[in-house]
Amino acid sequence: MENVDLIIYARWVIPVRPKQQVLENRGVVVNQGKLVAILSRQECESRFASEQVVERPHGVLIPGLINAHTHASMTLLRGFADDLPLMKWLSEYIWPAEAKWVDEHFVEFGAELAILEMIKGGTTCFNDMYFFPDVVAKVAKNTGIRASVGMIVIDFPTVWAQNADEYLDKGMAVHDVFRHESRIKTTFAPHAPYTVSDAPLERIRMFADELDVQIHMHVHETEHEVEESVAQYGVRPLERLDRLGLLTPRLQAVHLTQLLPGEIETLAGRGVHAVHCPQSNMKLASGVSPVSAMRDAGINIAVGTDGASSNNDLDMFAEMQSAAMMAKHQTLSAEALPAFDALEAATLSGACALGIDSITGTIEPGKAADLVCVDLKHAASWPVYHPVAQLAYAVSRDQVSDVWVEGECLLQEGNPCRMNEDYILDAAQEIANRIAADE
Amino acid sequence: MENVDLIIYARWVIPVRPKQQVLENRGVVVNQGKLVAILSRQECESRFASEQVVERPHGVLIPGLINAHTHASMTLLRGFADDLPLMKWLSEYIWPAEAKWVDEHFVEFGAELAILEMIKGGTTCFNDMYFFPDVVAKVAKNTGIRASVGMIVIDFPTVWAQNADEYLDKGMAVHDVFRHESRIKTTFAPHAPYTVSDAPLERIRMFADELDVQIHMHVHETEHEVEESVAQYGVRPLERLDRLGLLTPRLQAVHLTQLLPGEIETLAGRGVHAVHCPQSNMKLASGVSPVSAMRDAGINIAVGTDGASSNNDLDMFAEMQSAAMMAKHQTLSAEALPAFDALEAATLSGACALGIDSITGTIEPGKAADLVCVDLKHAASWPVYHPVAQLAYAVSRDQVSDVWVEGECLLQEGNPCRMNEDYILDAAQEIANRIAADE
Repeated sequence: MENVDLIIYARWVIPVRPKQQVLENRGVVVNQGKLVAILSRQECESRFASEQVVERPHGVLIPGLINAHTHASMTLLRGFADDLPLMKWLSEYIWPAEAKWVDEHFVEFGAELAILEMIKGGTTCFNDMYFFPDVVAKVAKNTGIRASVGMIVIDFPTVWAQNADEYLDKGMAVHDVFRHESRIKTTFAPHAPYTVSDAPLERIRMFADELDVQIHMHVHETEHEVEESVAQYGVRPLERLDRLGLLTPRLQAVHLTQLLPGEIETLAGRGVHAVHCPQSNMKLASGVSPVSAMRDAGINIAVGTDGASSNNDLDMFAEMQSAAMMAKHQTLSAEALPAFDALEAATLSGACALGIDSITGTIEPGKAADLVCVDLKHAASWPVYHPVAQLAYAVSRDQVSDVWVEGECLLQEGNPCRMNEDYILDAAQEIANRIAADE
Repeated sequence: MENVDLIIYARWVIPVRPKQQVLENRGVVVNQGKLVAILSRQECESRFASEQVVERPHGVLIPGLINAHTHASMTLLRGFADDLPLMKWLSEYIWPAEAKWVDEHFVEFGAELAILEMIKGGTTCFNDMYFFPDVVAKVAKNTGIRASVGMIVIDFPTVWAQNADEYLDKGMAVHDVFRHESRIKTTFAPHAPYTVSDAPLERIRMFADELDVQIHMHVHETEHEVEESVAQYGVRPLERLDRLGLLTPRLQAVHLTQLLPGEIETLAGRGVHAVHCPQSNMKLASGVSPVSAMRDAGINIAVGTDGASSNNDLDMFAEMQSAAMMAKHQTLSAEALPAFDALEAATLSGACALGIDSITGTIEPGKAADLVCVDLKHAASWPVYHPVAQLAYAVSRDQVSDVWVEGECLLQEGNPCRMNEDYILDAAQEIANRIAADE
């Protein structure tokens, strides 16, 4: 008998690899943060013992969800301004509020709220882009969630830095501080083609290779952005990025609602990762990413919620469902993006985009034990014929019962293990009250 | 001091009428099933006393949601077959399963599961179309929910009736039995233009006037349906219905994904009610209803989930959110179907379509106390700037804390008052296991 840290017995286990596999009544064995084995109960009980045995007779165990694009701290502006066109929403509401209110304190409390929401909703890893990435990384580390924090770069001065050089320097200092943390990664995060000029983009390309990090960027979010680029640079943003050497497997291109067939070919040929944010794109009326065509071309497609000020939540189950439904609507084919593929996009494809698929994204021995258990015995997701369909089309975030990252329990039967929920919510409302009073 | 049955103190009250109104820290007074007053705490405490006082310091009180189109008992086929085109899904999976498995027992247990899910998710009234409407009405009555049950009519024989005459006779017998129940209404429910021929439609029109009931019908759900009608009748379904005199304020036209500008004008001119099911239409790739254009034309638009075998849940919060997001996507205007309008569509507009807006659909003195309290203090819907935005864009069904119909509490702090949740879920899984074993 081998002693291990944790054994989870679940009614169903969906490892994501092999594709489509649904295991029933299995024990998942975890030791020193890693997955050791997935076995029948009998075999598990005969080979492994643990002081920590979790029984989930109506639970389905899946790899932790990976939110491949968000601005965590913007949860503090959730519902601050809605039902407005993107540029009006940004320039008249979000940017002025950010200019006035965003500081380390705001970023810290916003990240705490976001991470609390994500853990409760089954997200074990998020890919962030915001000011004070050092603070986001610190909060992520304290909460235990896995994170990829963006070394943000924008041409104009903000509370975080004054010019491209300062953004880069401060970003790389963050990279340095957290480089040995197993759960924290950094990416370069040039905001968008329309906010970052050629020189810093070239430096980012070079530094990304040197540091071996990904590049996280909004690309072709709106038609307006594409038109502006044509007017200013004479080419569409993707062509400009290609000329700058940025279209590589390092790039996480977020949104991509405006794509010509030739651009899909180029993205596929260059191995660029797409990050699809269907709810944000719908809500801001930005268009919709041609997910099915991109998949057919062989592009890896991850899923992200975007920030809570546009979405208005960080709910990866809702995002998965929207991705699947929108793909069907867009192609007028009910077979587009079926349930399993939506789940894969929200797990393994996210890990691929973040460059961590050797570490996480599936339930396979040797990988980190980043696991989520969802209780399917709920009036809205019962009875069960095919658990994958329930996950994609019927489950709500509030059915997540347990969350582990590197085998550490962060949510147990719906209760956060390391975070003080009441304190975080009260602090968030206090900040919101100050912002609202100033309106 | 006047003694009343119930006083609810909520942090916010959104009565839906007047439009856009958000009241803070109010007491809602209920007596003998009806709303008596909405007052400040001070005024409420000075004028009313009750043995039953409910305090919801983080709750928002709204009119109960009205699910304007569903097939309740099909919850037993939730997730039975997914990711398939409509006609294949119907003819190869749903219809054969229904032919083999649907009987009174199936309808009874399916309706119980559906009503449990709806009550837990804040739905106080549903508009149903299925076989054995007598059983659905009986279950609805036993559970306390408000319902409009469809006297279904189809040309071909089913387990419920053999021909149009028998459908009509059996339907009208159901109407007769339940006509004095305050919470149960009946409608005629001719399935769709492509499944009901002219003669029964003409009789339905006549009987609907005589009995003063609404007519609930799938109309223009798919392009295929429209093409078939042109081939068979030489006209599109709506024109055929118009010639038969069915386009009146009695008609609840469900889906309407295929509409010409002239048809929108006709629907508006005739006062027809539209029932929008965005998630079902997306998932089955049927197209999308031109909600904004219909609203501009003055058409009343209710919202429905459709059956759980296509959606795959009966979640009116998710449906509200999808309606708002899809309208923005469709029109490429982020201002389309703003948050308040989505909430109105899911409450008052549903009551109008069902012909019960004098009874329910808003929080106004004199109306029935059909009320839902949603707890906004949740990591995914906090902080709060504008509670209406939270309801439309951030809340999940599982945040519903309390539900009242005619002042009777059906859900208290998340727990059903009149239904045995475990028993219903276990019975549902038992039936699903038999169906799955037969596959």
